[in-house]
Amino acid sequence: MRIALLGGTGDIGEGLALRWAFHTNHDVIIGSRDPEKARQKAEEYETELDSRGVDRKINGFENPMAADRADVVVLSVPPYHVADTVDAVADKLDEGDVLVTPAAGIKRDDDGFHYHPPSAGSVTQLVADAAPDDVAVVGAFHNLAAGRLADLDAELGIDTLLVADDPDAKETVRMLAEGIDGLRALDAGGIANASEIEAVTPLLINVATNNDGMHDLGVRFQ
Amino acid sequence: MRIALLGGTGDIGEGLALRWAFHTNHDVIIGSRDPEKARQKAEEYETELDSRGVDRKINGFENPMAADRADVVVLSVPPYHVADTVDAVADKLDEGDVLVTPAAGIKRDDDGFHYHPPSAGSVTQLVADAAPDDVAVVGAFHNLAAGRLADLDAELGIDTLLVADDPDAKETVRMLAEGIDGLRALDAGGIANASEIEAVTPLLINVATNNDGMHDLGVRFQ
Repeated sequence: MRIALLGGTGDIGEGLALRWAFHTNHDVIIGSRDPEKARQKAEEYETELDSRGVDRKINGFENPMAADRADVVVLSVPPYHVADTVDAVADKLDEGDVLVTPAAGIKRDDDGFHYHPPSAGSVTQLVADAAPDDVAVVGAFHNLAAGRLADLDAELGIDTLLVADDPDAKETVRMLAEGIDGLRALDAGGIANASEIEAVTPLLINVATNNDGMHDLGVRFQ
Repeated sequence: MRIALLGGTGDIGEGLALRWAFHTNHDVIIGSRDPEKARQKAEEYETELDSRGVDRKINGFENPMAADRADVVVLSVPPYHVADTVDAVADKLDEGDVLVTPAAGIKRDDDGFHYHPPSAGSVTQLVADAAPDDVAVVGAFHNLAAGRLADLDAELGIDTLLVADDPDAKETVRMLAEGIDGLRALDAGGIANASEIEAVTPLLINVATNNDGMHDLGVRFQ
């Protein structure tokens, strides 16, 4: 499968790119608004993998060109760029492509981090509203600490929750998620259930902030 | 320490009562709006403990009388009864008593379970607003499956998150929580951070509903 990580130069994109390139045989494509930055980061990821004895070709392109080449497109951009990014690539998405959204709306104040959803109710719903009708949307990878994901020495042993209204698309992303060692994918229902998942992201930061020795937290349902 | 479980005849109250009576030496008091029901349930809990070789006296009273006798008062009532319950016992609470709230606002629709906070922002904040000024409020025990808690054969291995604006009260509840075998208490900051914790409760139900073999779920931060 060919996976494009739009905003794949950012921290969550880097983590997913490295993990998929390291643990699976899927083609990984890095997208960015700046194609030169995409190429440069793709090369850095290749170097990192090479240092671990893994010879993988990772290409970098401007976001629309990356999306055009992929079966699964991951919107690894900040939540306030999600809608613009979907618009920028919409006419490159083919029927049957899957759009994956890992972003969560968060705001910080003096007390800590809080869930701050867009008016659509969740970032996942925002993506579903913005996506072309024939492209399925899956919410996934919300509650992963980017630094831990990008550190290939770090064991995961955590869960990611999936929401989607299209069962086939959800199954595709479940398979991609479980290809990553130590990551278990669980079904959390339809996109209407996304906000409670996105709200876990600020919670993880609050827990890490308030407990000595805890950082880069993930969550396990048991 | 003397712990009163108001609404201690309900499912989360039963679980906490049994666990504290089984694993610790704290005095456990059952409160209910109906004192006869409180006494009857307290007796049932004694019988359950006795069948496991634990001889404990558990008393049952009407809620205000239960609160009057306790240092720590747990509002194990449904979220829509929380404010009335605080009002009913407010003049029985002494300075230094700790009020603990485990309730989360949840609504169900065709898609699944959703977080449905009161206008105060969270049930925990609602309790803080309703509580007398000299009584500290701690949010805790939100994300525990009642059935698993009440089954003393069930291992926990899960976390509970604490929020409070009073560090001493938070420490008291942390100590009570960690007295329960297999339960780890983590600090999630102040009461302003409660809503993201309460939102995990409907999420746990959605995950249990959508994945074969998963039920009575808890959460572990790792």
